[in-house]
Order: sequence, then C-alpha cells, then structure tokens
Amino acid sequence: MSGSVAIVGLGPGDRSLVTPAATAALDRATDLIGYIPYVARVPERPGLTRHPSDNRVEVDRARHALTLASEGRHVAIVSGGDPGVFAMAAAVFEAVEHGDPAWRSLSITVEPGITAMLAAAARLGAPMGGDFCALSLSDNLKPWEVVTARLEAVLRADLVVALYNPISSARPWQLGAALGLALEIRDATTPVAFARAVTRPDEALRVMTLEEARQAPADMATLVIIGASGTRLIPRGPGERPFLYTPRSVPAGR
Amino acid sequence: MSGSVAIVGLGPGDRSLVTPAATAALDRATDLIGYIPYVARVPERPGLTRHPSDNRVEVDRARHALTLASEGRHVAIVSGGDPGVFAMAAAVFEAVEHGDPAWRSLSITVEPGITAMLAAAARLGAPMGGDFCALSLSDNLKPWEVVTARLEAVLRADLVVALYNPISSARPWQLGAALGLALEIRDATTPVAFARAVTRPDEALRVMTLEEARQAPADMATLVIIGASGTRLIPRGPGERPFLYTPRSVPAGR
Repeated sequence: MSGSVAIVGLGPGDRSLVTPAATAALDRATDLIGYIPYVARVPERPGLTRHPSDNRVEVDRARHALTLASEGRHVAIVSGGDPGVFAMAAAVFEAVEHGDPAWRSLSITVEPGITAMLAAAARLGAPMGGDFCALSLSDNLKPWEVVTARLEAVLRADLVVALYNPISSARPWQLGAALGLALEIRDATTPVAFARAVTRPDEALRVMTLEEARQAPADMATLVIIGASGTRLIPRGPGERPFLYTPRSVPAGR
Repeated sequence: MSGSVAIVGLGPGDRSLVTPAATAALDRATDLIGYIPYVARVPERPGLTRHPSDNRVEVDRARHALTLASEGRHVAIVSGGDPGVFAMAAAVFEAVEHGDPAWRSLSITVEPGITAMLAAAARLGAPMGGDFCALSLSDNLKPWEVVTARLEAVLRADLVVALYNPISSARPWQLGAALGLALEIRDATTPVAFARAVTRPDEALRVMTLEEARQAPADMATLVIIGASGTRLIPRGPGERPFLYTPRSVPAGR
C-alpha cells in the first residue's frame, strides 16, 4: 500500500499561523477531508478532491480517510488548531486500532499546529506562564463526573486551566457549573479570559474576574482560561487591554 | 515611545515548523535577543544586531529587550517552542510589571510557536488526545513540595502529563523521584515517551513502560510524556515504531 494520511493542524485561523510543514502536507494531498469550515480554509486547486463533511462523528471521517489511503490516495485530514488536542488525530488512531489491520502499514503522519489555548495566550500576554492543563468540558465522550473530578483536582493543585469545548446548544449549563466549582476553590477575583475566534475576523477577547465570568456569554468558538492564584493583570493606558500573565515562580507556602 | 518587543516562538527546531508570522516578526526586528542556540537559528542579515546570551537569568534578557525598545529599537526575543510555555513571555511581563512604568506603553506582542509537547505528540501519534497538563519539573522557581503536590494531583486525576525541564546537571534526581511517584499511582505498564530534540538532527524518540522509564537516560533536551490509564500502543510491522495515542473517550467508572 503506497497511500498516506496526513493529519494537518491549520492553527487558530489566520493564515500566517499555518506552518510551512502543514502547507507542504496540503500541497502533496490528492484528497482533503474535514469538517466544512476547516476544508474551506484550504484553497482549491487542480488535482485536489475535496470531501467537506458536516458529520460530527469524527471516527467516520477517519475511516473514510484510511479507506481512501488504502486505495493509494494521499489524504490530508484538516483540523483547526493542533490535530493532537481535542481534534482529529486521536480519532484516526482509534480507527486504525479497531479497523483493517492493513491500515497499520500506511504512512500516517501528524503536522502540528498552534492550538487555541496558546494562540489565545499569545494575544493576552502569558497566562499559561506556569504549570497548566487543557481539559475538554464536553461530556459527550466522558462522564460528567470525570469532568468535574478532574477540574476539581487541577483547581486545587493551582494549575492554570484551559477549557476547550466549554459550551454548545446541547450542553448549555456545563460551563456555568464548571465556573461555579472554580468559585468554590479559587478567589472570586481570579482573572478569567474568554477568547473567541482568536486571530479570525470576529475575534473577541474578554478578561474579567471569576465572579463576573459566571454571567458572561460564551459559544462553541470560545476558549476559556481560568487563572491560577498567581495570575495577574498589568494595567495599561486608557483603551489598552491589560496584559494578563502568570509568573513563572511560585512562592513557598502556596 | 515607538519601539517594540516581539517575543517569538521558533518551534522545536525544524525550520518548516516556524510560522510565517514568526518569520515576519523576525524580519521586522532591528535587534535580536535570546539564549545562544535560539539566536543561532535566525539567519544573519544587514540591519539586525544580534545579542546572544548565555545568561540563565531570563528576566535580565527581558529588561535588556525592554530597555532597547524604550530607545526606539524593534526587538525580537527568541524562544524555542512556544514563548508562553516555560519560556520568555512570562519573564518579559514580570519585567514589565516590576520595571519602568513607561514600558507598559510599548508595543509588546507574542508570536506563538509549536511547543515541545505538541511537536513530540505529533511524531509519536496522539498521546495528548485526552485531557492533559504541562508541568515544569524544575524546582528553581517553585518549591519541590509544590512540584510533587501538583504531579500527584494530576496523576490521580488521570491526565496525560507532559514534563518540561525534567533534568539538568544541577537537578539530577528529580525526574527519578517524579517517575517513582507516578509508579505509586499508575500501572507499571503505563506507556511513557522520552522525546529528545524533536525535529532536530539528533532527535531521539523512545517509548517504554513506566517501570522501564525509571532506568532510562534523559537530558535537558528531553520532554517526558506519562500516559493516562487509557493511553495505548498500536503495534506495527517489524522495525516500525508503534503508534502511541490516548483515546478521546473515558469509560464510565474510570
């Protein structure tokens, strides 16, 4: 079998954050697979067959890609951000493990991208400057009890917390519950950032207190960062957004 | 003041993983500041004054950059990986907060990069496919008790753990202690990856069990990934490295 699958991270949205390696992988592809808005980011060209999909079952897309590759095609699967962070890479390897044994002989590569939390952090200052974690707030693939147990553990351990998939029409209350849990453990004045559509034309960055965050609107394109006890704001001049950062040092006794 | 500071992530090493935005920021700079091996990655050109430093005190480099910018220079500070992850961005904002109030009016931007754990994950498969965290194992800037308390919390919460700064000549025993703690909490067969110098000519990727990891050599260029309970290997043909991945799903009761 001489086909291949490249799982390609497109970054947060701006073309200047797509790595040359990702662009080269897209240039080599004969077939392009992905969720509609990600496929739309890749320019059309002769020789590239596009398979945009609104199917939310990621393993279906993965199997489609592996089937095409087993027929000798060179398939690029596109993800926003980094494909290894709550995106298509794990879905592809799940499909490989449970699928046709011949798929294990395919060339399967991952091209990393700028993941949402690091794109958001860069726009805000350096909020992930200390120890941090990335949690998906979705309970589609894990029990809500696991989500809350993990969140409580990392809040108590004073990590900066990035929440992916904070809310959707089918999961309207989970973010409020998560921020309520955070308020039980962290100070009400802890800085929280809601970073929406980072680097895209409709980007919106809001920095507020944990108390205020419970009332703030969010949507599927929002990434939420909950600061640690050391996370702080540096005020700037009128009309300038303050810098948000987490010092690298943790004093003794905290 | 019309000077500027751009804190630029150079990614793990390969030029094809430097974003166009990072390259553009380097092209605009009049002055280049950073630890010697990172400055060496940027080609020389007329009009660019280079300030390579072997000073390990990152805040000194930050102050130097801010001072130059306050004199009207356009300074790029280079970091490996992503500047917001255990790198120069937090050091710059620390210097701003505690330094000349006029520094707050400077243009200070961060150009994100591919951080080591995501570059390593991409080469290995999708080990960060579930919830994960990034901890610095260095006790230069936080007490060792904080390091171990955080590590224990995330191990018990079943997150995938990426350990930055696992070892140095001044900190020879901390990685062994951390892996020993992991062995008390996670199964001895848990997959562990040691990813050294990812994408550089001397790259070395090793996947082993947690039990084996305690005896494995590591150095300052190594990133350690400790799998979660669901992290698994997909065996492949002779001579082929297995795929390492963490499924997105967590079954009830785990």
